[in-house]
Amino acid sequence: MRSLSIQSCSQLPNARRPQFIKSNNLYNLIWNSPLKNVFIVKKPKDLNVKNAMIEFINYLGQDYPSVNIIINEDVVEELGELNYTVYTGSSQDIVDKTDMLITLGGDGTILHGVSLFSNSSVPPVLSFAMGTLGFLLPFDFKNFKQCFSMVYENRSKALHRNRLECHVYREKKTENREMIHAMNEITIHRGSLPNLTALDIYIDNEFFTTTNSDGIIFSTPTGSTAYSLSSGGSITHPNVPCILLTPICPRSLSFRPLILPSASDIMIKLSDNNRNKNIELIIDGISQNDLQPGDELHITSESIGNDDLNGIWCVATDRNQWAKDINSLLGFNNSFKNKGKI
Amino acid sequence: MRSLSIQSCSQLPNARRPQFIKSNNLYNLIWNSPLKNVFIVKKPKDLNVKNAMIEFINYLGQDYPSVNIIINEDVVEELGELNYTVYTGSSQDIVDKTDMLITLGGDGTILHGVSLFSNSSVPPVLSFAMGTLGFLLPFDFKNFKQCFSMVYENRSKALHRNRLECHVYREKKTENREMIHAMNEITIHRGSLPNLTALDIYIDNEFFTTTNSDGIIFSTPTGSTAYSLSSGGSITHPNVPCILLTPICPRSLSFRPLILPSASDIMIKLSDNNRNKNIELIIDGISQNDLQPGDELHITSESIGNDDLNGIWCVATDRNQWAKDINSLLGFNNSFKNKGKI
Amino acid sequence: MRSLSIQSCSQLPNARRPQFIKSNNLYNLIWNSPLKNVFIVKKPKDLNVKNAMIEFINYLGQDYPSVNIIINEDVVEELGELNYTVYTGSSQDIVDKTDMLITLGGDGTILHGVSLFSNSSVPPVLSFAMGTLGFLLPFDFKNFKQCFSMVYENRSKALHRNRLECHVYREKKTENREMIHAMNEITIHRGSLPNLTALDIYIDNEFFTTTNSDGIIFSTPTGSTAYSLSSGGSITHPNVPCILLTPICPRSLSFRPLILPSASDIMIKLSDNNRNKNIELIIDGISQNDLQPGDELHITSESIGNDDLNGIWCVATDRNQWAKDINSLLGFNNSFKNKGKI
Amino acid sequence: MRSLSIQSCSQLPNARRPQFIKSNNLYNLIWNSPLKNVFIVKKPKDLNVKNAMIEFINYLGQDYPSVNIIINEDVVEELGELNYTVYTGSSQDIVDKTDMLITLGGDGTILHGVSLFSNSSVPPVLSFAMGTLGFLLPFDFKNFKQCFSMVYENRSKALHRNRLECHVYREKKTENREMIHAMNEITIHRGSLPNLTALDIYIDNEFFTTTNSDGIIFSTPTGSTAYSLSSGGSITHPNVPCILLTPICPRSLSFRPLILPSASDIMIKLSDNNRNKNIELIIDGISQNDLQPGDELHITSESIGNDDLNGIWCVATDRNQWAKDINSLLGFNNSFKNKGKI
Repeated sequence: MRSLSIQSCSQLPNARRPQFIKSNNLYNLIWNSPLKNVFIVKKPKDLNVKNAMIEFINYLGQDYPSVNIIINEDVVEELGELNYTVYTGSSQDIVDKTDMLITLGGDGTILHGVSLFSNSSVPPVLSFAMGTLGFLLPFDFKNFKQCFSMVYENRSKALHRNRLECHVYREKKTENREMIHAMNEITIHRGSLPNLTALDIYIDNEFFTTTNSDGIIFSTPTGSTAYSLSSGGSITHPNVPCILLTPICPRSLSFRPLILPSASDIMIKLSDNNRNKNIELIIDGISQNDLQPGDELHITSESIGNDDLNGIWCVATDRNQWAKDINSLLGFNNSFKNKGKI
Repeated sequence: MRSLSIQSCSQLPNARRPQFIKSNNLYNLIWNSPLKNVFIVKKPKDLNVKNAMIEFINYLGQDYPSVNIIINEDVVEELGELNYTVYTGSSQDIVDKTDMLITLGGDGTILHGVSLFSNSSVPPVLSFAMGTLGFLLPFDFKNFKQCFSMVYENRSKALHRNRLECHVYREKKTENREMIHAMNEITIHRGSLPNLTALDIYIDNEFFTTTNSDGIIFSTPTGSTAYSLSSGGSITHPNVPCILLTPICPRSLSFRPLILPSASDIMIKLSDNNRNKNIELIIDGISQNDLQPGDELHITSESIGNDDLNGIWCVATDRNQWAKDINSLLGFNNSFKNKGKI
Repeated sequence: MRSLSIQSCSQLPNARRPQFIKSNNLYNLIWNSPLKNVFIVKKPKDLNVKNAMIEFINYLGQDYPSVNIIINEDVVEELGELNYTVYTGSSQDIVDKTDMLITLGGDGTILHGVSLFSNSSVPPVLSFAMGTLGFLLPFDFKNFKQCFSMVYENRSKALHRNRLECHVYREKKTENREMIHAMNEITIHRGSLPNLTALDIYIDNEFFTTTNSDGIIFSTPTGSTAYSLSSGGSITHPNVPCILLTPICPRSLSFRPLILPSASDIMIKLSDNNRNKNIELIIDGISQNDLQPGDELHITSESIGNDDLNGIWCVATDRNQWAKDINSLLGFNNSFKNKGKI
Repeated sequence: MRSLSIQSCSQLPNARRPQFIKSNNLYNLIWNSPLKNVFIVKKPKDLNVKNAMIEFINYLGQDYPSVNIIINEDVVEELGELNYTVYTGSSQDIVDKTDMLITLGGDGTILHGVSLFSNSSVPPVLSFAMGTLGFLLPFDFKNFKQCFSMVYENRSKALHRNRLECHVYREKKTENREMIHAMNEITIHRGSLPNLTALDIYIDNEFFTTTNSDGIIFSTPTGSTAYSLSSGGSITHPNVPCILLTPICPRSLSFRPLILPSASDIMIKLSDNNRNKNIELIIDGISQNDLQPGDELHITSESIGNDDLNGIWCVATDRNQWAKDINSLLGFNNSFKNKGKI
């Protein structure tokens, strides 16, 4: 009789990358050698999600004994009753070994899981909704067996989502520059300070404009239905290669949101005459160290010329999922009930 | 002594296409065999523009005697004092022979000149502003000699602009379907009739939404600073491959403008319960035959996979012209004069 | 046995006006001498509405024999089976005799009924919804007996709605100026012509701005949920004394909608350099004679200083009907289904 | 020879209120007994403003020896070279004695000066711009002599601006409720915390809607050109009696800004399920103590029925100043430079 065994994932074979073959707007996800190591990330503090994880691990252990299951160390204690071997390790070890990321929770769980790979390429993502709804959540957990077998047997499709790449140069620090990836958006905001932020924006090495506003959002198409939407940005299909520049409460009547090419080289310099001395930087909803006047951000789209290694491949249902989500999740174009002549 | 000679352009060598070599966001425009036939289009009824055309023809006649000048037949009578040979002919002959299109006037003159090529590929466009300003007008006429010689000597750069391709299927007509290209936008509008238009929109063969609105705009990025902008659309860089869907006065609080992939296959069906029996179709500002309930429009982006033959190549100044135009022509992000605390 | 008798309404006693006594945001509607003459207006070509009208007339004939029923002449032929006396006459006669207007239909029926009184003061309006929904339709027809008795017995409340007063001065006509009232809005629009309208707007006798746009809307708060809303205007409570100025597709990034005082004296002059020679004037959805360059419109709010005789008194349910309608009819502030962190 | 003498303002005669007589959109400002006590407030840390203040005091001392000059205690040390008597005292003393408030600085200086009277009625305000521009700044300092004499001699006009009255009920405190007035706006904002605020809004004692947003603004018409404008609110003339409700980055496509009657009784309850435990309250740009889940705000317009004692009377130039400011300060309806066909 087997019992729960926790082993180091460093002994697992190195991560393998599948192949992606274009098929309409999506890609066929093909494992040339079989899928070996799956990393399961779950929403914390939710009993239903914990039970779902255990059900999922049991299923893999029984039906796919050759598949190795990786979890974060802080999840180990939730596995008391399991009779299988699971693997864990340092973040770097997990990054090195993961063939596929499986998330159980909401959009936030995906953003969290993906953020572990912020400095490297991201394994394909299979996401299950747990009673929540979201743009990144194509599959209901109740279909998890069918979904996993489709992925394992090379019958699944994937949607490619670009990330933004953000380099932070801090004037007053000698440390190496920071590099962070964003799946949704990079936000600069005045936070709780009363004065507007003054940001000088350069595009392709030429000065473009100075914003006086609460803040500014640089969003991927994936993020176009998140904070950018609340700030007035257009809804953008994830297949459009672009960067959205959306102002937050600008002190201007004429700062319309912009759609920039994904090849744009964007630089934001925090003007020295900012009255606020601490300006917030938030990436995918996670606060970073404050920026200060004089600091610079460099933003580009990650996936120029090498889609296979860049961006995020999300297992998807069908190519029109986006249109359905726009309608069902956002209530897009809800018509009035008093239709009639104008 | 030579005098004005009008000859048929059918005798000219066939149009040659230059090569386009990517260089940053722009392309180097290279004539592998020298530029031979230029088609000059001018704004009508403007004495300054007429004089500019004559100055331009004189210059070509003297400095580039091997270059053949093509004009529309209705311009011939304005050339009384010229001593050179110019060519003219039917629209089809002009289309067949033109290596390069040169426009003198405003944005409207370019849209008009390009519309001649609505059913074929468009020659590169060199546009001169005549006292007007516009997004499609990079060059001031006073620099025309320098501009032309740069183009002739393979030292110029070009910006690629996608067009939309629109097929109209009319329920009650037996004629073949119509096909029209749009450089800026395709607009469906209630016109002067009081009732809203009800349009069923399909994307990639699936139903997407029904609009109840004054109308709807499908715009190229080039057109994003024209009618789409007035209707609330985002400003979109011409290098972003996409189609903008912007509603005009929708009877919905939640019809936010959309940015769709350029590979989208869009179908608009005029709902049979439209109370208006004649609905307007306007392409690049030119009214087409009215649509009727039951008619269909199919819209795609023209340039999938064959950029060299598709779209419009516009001779350009530098790669940041767009950003400069946004600021100077639109007054983008004009700041308030009473800056201060919020 | 009585049979249907059609008589001239000119023999009826002259219209009497009730008294309005402020009570919270609404007014108590008090008939100092009993209500005598009611004018019933119905939606045309709808069998349910016809039957409702007959049911209503039967009810009045039996329970309120002292109340005289006035209808339009074109409705007489629909009354074949009735056994009561009804009155009709010229529009002017009807205007002179009507104590109260009762409408059966939708918002459009009310706008139509009220338009008869466009040049005079309007009697109180009691509106019944006939399967439709609308901002002007507080009562369901199934409660018609209770509603009418409350009005008759001085137990009803009324909401006061301001109208706009529009004077048209046509440069090329010698006729007296036209005067029209608008319950919802006055719209000037380019119609089906391709060029923008250029309108010079003066406020309180000083030049304010020139619009280059598809058109412009001057709306009452009542109309703020109609065409103005589709064009981006704010939702305005009918108790706010103001005039909304909302542009339609302006060629400007900075033409934000305006809320002007109800005491404003607005003049719109159609600039002589309008390229369109026929510009549309639409009042409450009804097309008026086209305007031409050089024509002028003068717009004021009607109700300055004499609310009892001006504006429209609509029998209302309770003072929070507006908030309920905003939510139920417009889907105001529908939240996203994927709530979560930004 | 006189020298600088600082005396307590408690010995001055009590404040007198002028009379306001309606004249078009403005009011004639009439002192029935002559203006005695003026309170001068200046922008801090600005040499030009300091010199202007001294010039102003010298002028009053020479030409209007009967006028008493009140200043804040912290300004006394800046008066070293003056030879006149000036008065100072506690905030309450100043409030009790001030006939008129004179401000030297920007819009912020006025908001600061007026905030001293946040719990009482405000004396008329005469504002001088010091190189800055603003909606509240009708007069250039270089005309200060002429301006003051017009006010003194009953030849000036005033514009009436409503304030909002905000009562804060804190669930966890036993202290009496706080009451604050807002000249521009009351803002509730998530501040630097990542989660949205969930606010339940009640109007006239009935539930209206729940906002999920960065925050929400309740603005006066005066504040409609400040933060509300940046968040998408309409521009509202100060003579329109209303309260603007403008959301900040709502998680909804259909939260259009609202214009509510000035008689509205608004209650905001911070939903207990707010994930943020400290939510910001900012009034006229000044941070108040944070709010917490369970707290309530009650907001009304102050000036119901007693305009003379309520609101703020600002000395004004002419009745069209607002329209001029909209154009010059906001760049309202700036037209594009590439006018033309749509």
